[in-house]
Amino acid sequence: MTESVHDYMTRLGRAAREASRVLARASTAQKNRALQAAASALDAARTELSAANEQDLASGRSNGLDEAMLDRLALTPARIDDMIEGLRQVAALPDPIGEIRDMRYLPSGIQVGKMRVPLGVVGIIYESRPNVTIDAASLCLKSGNATILRGGSEAIHSNQAIARCIQLGLAEAGLPAAAVQVVETTDRAAVGALIAMPEFVDVIVPRGGKGLIERISREARVPVIKHLDGICHVYIDVAADIDKAVRIADNAKTQRYAPCNTMETLLVHAAIAGKVLPPLAAIYREKGVELRGCGQTRELLGDVLEASEEDWSTEYNAPILSIKIVESLDAAIEHINRYGSQHTDAIVTENFTDARRFLTEVDSSSVMINASTRFADGFEYGLGAEIGISTDKLHARGPVGLEGLTSEKYVVFGDGHVRT
Amino acid sequence: MTESVHDYMTRLGRAAREASRVLARASTAQKNRALQAAASALDAARTELSAANEQDLASGRSNGLDEAMLDRLALTPARIDDMIEGLRQVAALPDPIGEIRDMRYLPSGIQVGKMRVPLGVVGIIYESRPNVTIDAASLCLKSGNATILRGGSEAIHSNQAIARCIQLGLAEAGLPAAAVQVVETTDRAAVGALIAMPEFVDVIVPRGGKGLIERISREARVPVIKHLDGICHVYIDVAADIDKAVRIADNAKTQRYAPCNTMETLLVHAAIAGKVLPPLAAIYREKGVELRGCGQTRELLGDVLEASEEDWSTEYNAPILSIKIVESLDAAIEHINRYGSQHTDAIVTENFTDARRFLTEVDSSSVMINASTRFADGFEYGLGAEIGISTDKLHARGPVGLEGLTSEKYVVFGDGHVRT
Repeated sequence: MTESVHDYMTRLGRAAREASRVLARASTAQKNRALQAAASALDAARTELSAANEQDLASGRSNGLDEAMLDRLALTPARIDDMIEGLRQVAALPDPIGEIRDMRYLPSGIQVGKMRVPLGVVGIIYESRPNVTIDAASLCLKSGNATILRGGSEAIHSNQAIARCIQLGLAEAGLPAAAVQVVETTDRAAVGALIAMPEFVDVIVPRGGKGLIERISREARVPVIKHLDGICHVYIDVAADIDKAVRIADNAKTQRYAPCNTMETLLVHAAIAGKVLPPLAAIYREKGVELRGCGQTRELLGDVLEASEEDWSTEYNAPILSIKIVESLDAAIEHINRYGSQHTDAIVTENFTDARRFLTEVDSSSVMINASTRFADGFEYGLGAEIGISTDKLHARGPVGLEGLTSEKYVVFGDGHVRT
Repeated sequence: MTESVHDYMTRLGRAAREASRVLARASTAQKNRALQAAASALDAARTELSAANEQDLASGRSNGLDEAMLDRLALTPARIDDMIEGLRQVAALPDPIGEIRDMRYLPSGIQVGKMRVPLGVVGIIYESRPNVTIDAASLCLKSGNATILRGGSEAIHSNQAIARCIQLGLAEAGLPAAAVQVVETTDRAAVGALIAMPEFVDVIVPRGGKGLIERISREARVPVIKHLDGICHVYIDVAADIDKAVRIADNAKTQRYAPCNTMETLLVHAAIAGKVLPPLAAIYREKGVELRGCGQTRELLGDVLEASEEDWSTEYNAPILSIKIVESLDAAIEHINRYGSQHTDAIVTENFTDARRFLTEVDSSSVMINASTRFADGFEYGLGAEIGISTDKLHARGPVGLEGLTSEKYVVFGDGHVRT
């Protein structure tokens, strides 16, 4: 292209801002029609999608991408099915926009409440997985936001093929093409431009590794909904039911090792450690989980590596677990608030007061009683879908679905009321 | 002091973070006791407060502060009454913390809902008015947040005298002294440090002129709840009731000239302009409001200055009003979304469909039908108090009360549930 990356991104931004005004007043039926039509277009474009993806995979292989990267990049038929199903599910979700709540009369006679509205323009920056294009575009579209999508350069052909299907959907519903724009340059300056246009972009959602997210948060001139570490804990209280404790501590660690809601540190009350840790250690060992423990844990279990200070603040994303025996509920809460990442933490207990204290005093985006940390997820929480999990406190916290992509404005009804 | 400003601010930040953990679990009764005791302490310290304020006023006079600045700085007996009354009102508000909503069972069997929690540590940066110290401290305390207050250097003695009263209140309730800290140095580097400690400060609320707010927003490494322009509109629709239109357009402009929710531009449908503008112009002229109009307005009213392009995006905060005659509701909405500041805009109409379109399509933090823009205010909206009006879309939008100083975490209850 002959225009500079900066000019190109400004053009995208301006078009997105204009499209956002149209989207904000689009009817629910119109938005759903676009989502359904995009789903049909994906279904009809399977050959084209596979061919585009094959191009990306071939470049990936010749550029020496590792197997894990290539796997994330692959658009298998099953993944195309999932994208189609995802679009249809988002179409089936209730439309959050226009919802009015809490209309109340006030002493002056005016009636005041809140109406849910789109944020405006959402910028999504993500890495290799091309299906994020559909996830993000569908959630933003349903919530009435225009989107600028900047995927990984290794997925550029796949993302553009997916974008063509979205464009068919938008056209069929009579919505502007700029409602969903995929950045067509792989120049890294495009990211720098996207995060520095507050006049055109209302929020940035980065999806990817911690390095990407930290860099974007540091440099952005636009608010960022971000997801950093997931250092999640399960605390087995003195009053825990042993069966529930074993089931939850097993599931929280071993159901899957990579997700952010997987437990990284197990805390156990000293008075119950002798009963619950030996059966748990047997399960972990059988599943090949490496254990790293505090001194007491090592005495109790034997053959356990020593946990260093660093272990308590490490997100392994791997079959490794640190274990600490604590003397009290207070010590457990203190440990979690000090070393945790305010993501998801659970207590196992039958004691009402201990449960209530844990719920109140642990400052994390999800706090659980007698349930596995692995439930911290937009689908499991009934949000229908999620654009990510926020570890921020402002705006959206925890799994972010449609509601996290909206704001509320005040609406005031009167009958000629004036202030005196 | 011998320590550097940076070290001093770090010490305040660390102490605030620790205090925030205590405040987060403080009972409603304990927080209210602190507020009531601070009110009594203010009442008992009137002499001391006046003496400290007199010191500030004397320096202000010798430093050549203008009358408006000196007026904002003055702690009159009536203003001390207002601070005492404000503390008691905040004590009487319902406690937002711990509120649990929407607990629902999901197909997996877990029960999921949201619990309201404090943000943590709030930094307030403000200019001359010492009563902001009480407003901000009381709202933050009630919402379970620790506060670091950085007032204007011209009010340093007044702010410290007020801070001593707050400290007495905290001590009486058994809350940590670091729950409310007033920065004791007038070094401007303290502001730079305060807005760059994300590990200790969760959000910054700047209160003051646009220059201050823009600078802080640009430089902050912490989220900012900000309030920029208030370019508010009243649109008199073709289907307006003339009496209501005159009443509202009068009140929106002339009830007070300085506030951000005062109307700056009046839009009038061409078909009703001949009926409504002459009586309105008479009122404005009688009250000494300078009128600046579009060509049609000038033809209709005569003796009206010509509005320049710049007028449409100017916040006068003064007895000046720009007037534009528009051909349609669409043109009015287009004008507002283009030149407005997304603060507060009102339509006067008896037509249901026009009202509904205006409500949906005007993208402002408060949108009103048949009511004066002057109602956009935390007290008028029933929030009990406000820490400011946010012109942001993320997190809090419009008047920010206790709820805007909180976040929500997910709470999950199970009975040994694991994910499959």
